[in-house]
Amino acid sequence: MADILHRIGIKTSSIDDVYQALTTESGLAGWWTNNTQGEGNQVGSIIKFRFGAGGFDMKVSGLNKPTHVVWEVAEGPEEWMDTTINWELKQDGDYIIVLFKHLNWKEPVEFMHHCSTKWAIFLMSLKSLIETGKGTPDPVDVKIDNWN
Amino acid sequence: MADILHRIGIKTSSIDDVYQALTTESGLAGWWTNNTQGEGNQVGSIIKFRFGAGGFDMKVSGLNKPTHVVWEVAEGPEEWMDTTINWELKQDGDYIIVLFKHLNWKEPVEFMHHCSTKWAIFLMSLKSLIETGKGTPDPVDVKIDNWN
Repeated sequence: MADILHRIGIKTSSIDDVYQALTTESGLAGWWTNNTQGEGNQVGSIIKFRFGAGGFDMKVSGLNKPTHVVWEVAEGPEEWMDTTINWELKQDGDYIIVLFKHLNWKEPVEFMHHCSTKWAIFLMSLKSLIETGKGTPDPVDVKIDNWN
Repeated sequence: MADILHRIGIKTSSIDDVYQALTTESGLAGWWTNNTQGEGNQVGSIIKFRFGAGGFDMKVSGLNKPTHVVWEVAEGPEEWMDTTINWELKQDGDYIIVLFKHLNWKEPVEFMHHCSTKWAIFLMSLKSLIETGKGTPDPVDVKIDNWN
């Protein structure tokens, strides 16, 4: 098994604002993909994220407001099946720290390398959304390679 | 053991330009830290990278021009000791693909989460250096959190 791990710090005093950006349709659409359908504020609910070439359905499998969010991949690319995405939020001085984990990849395939870098870029989009009011969700996301 | 993996695609036809950016003092200073001392073009050589708060000494342990570069961490933070950094370059259409691996972390500590995100940011700086002639090395690097 292999995992993608990231850490960003968002300059804000409101952990609730960050939690909202992970658990509401408008929040998620503001940093990941503007084609987001579904709220993420109930355990068991499904959120549909669509991108140019495909997308993911996430099942909300854990919530502990305002510090923890867990998603299980319900639909998506073969390599994403049976993986879990874990969000932990905490305050540290002037920052809300986001510890991100995309857990349980079967193999460290080349697509996992791509997704790791792309997650970092989208986390910076989340940071920008909270700090400036404007993120860079798909389709205005920062491109990293020939897979986008 | 835990690994950091990334993939970027640099829009250039010159794999040599990317290899140079990983194996020369001026190249490395252009995207990682402007306080870089030492060339990376000989197996066994040491490159010293310094940042505001500290730094790393890398021993070049493998070179296969222009597709592979391997560094072993010779000095650095405790968590970096005995880790290895692996660069693989290959052409794919209009891009030179960089597969990056920072291997053999003992534990997936919070600092590893930070380094994973920060590596993505520095890889985007490498991409920018080659594509536009200008990277964002320390101290003008993009800040990601309260650890910088």
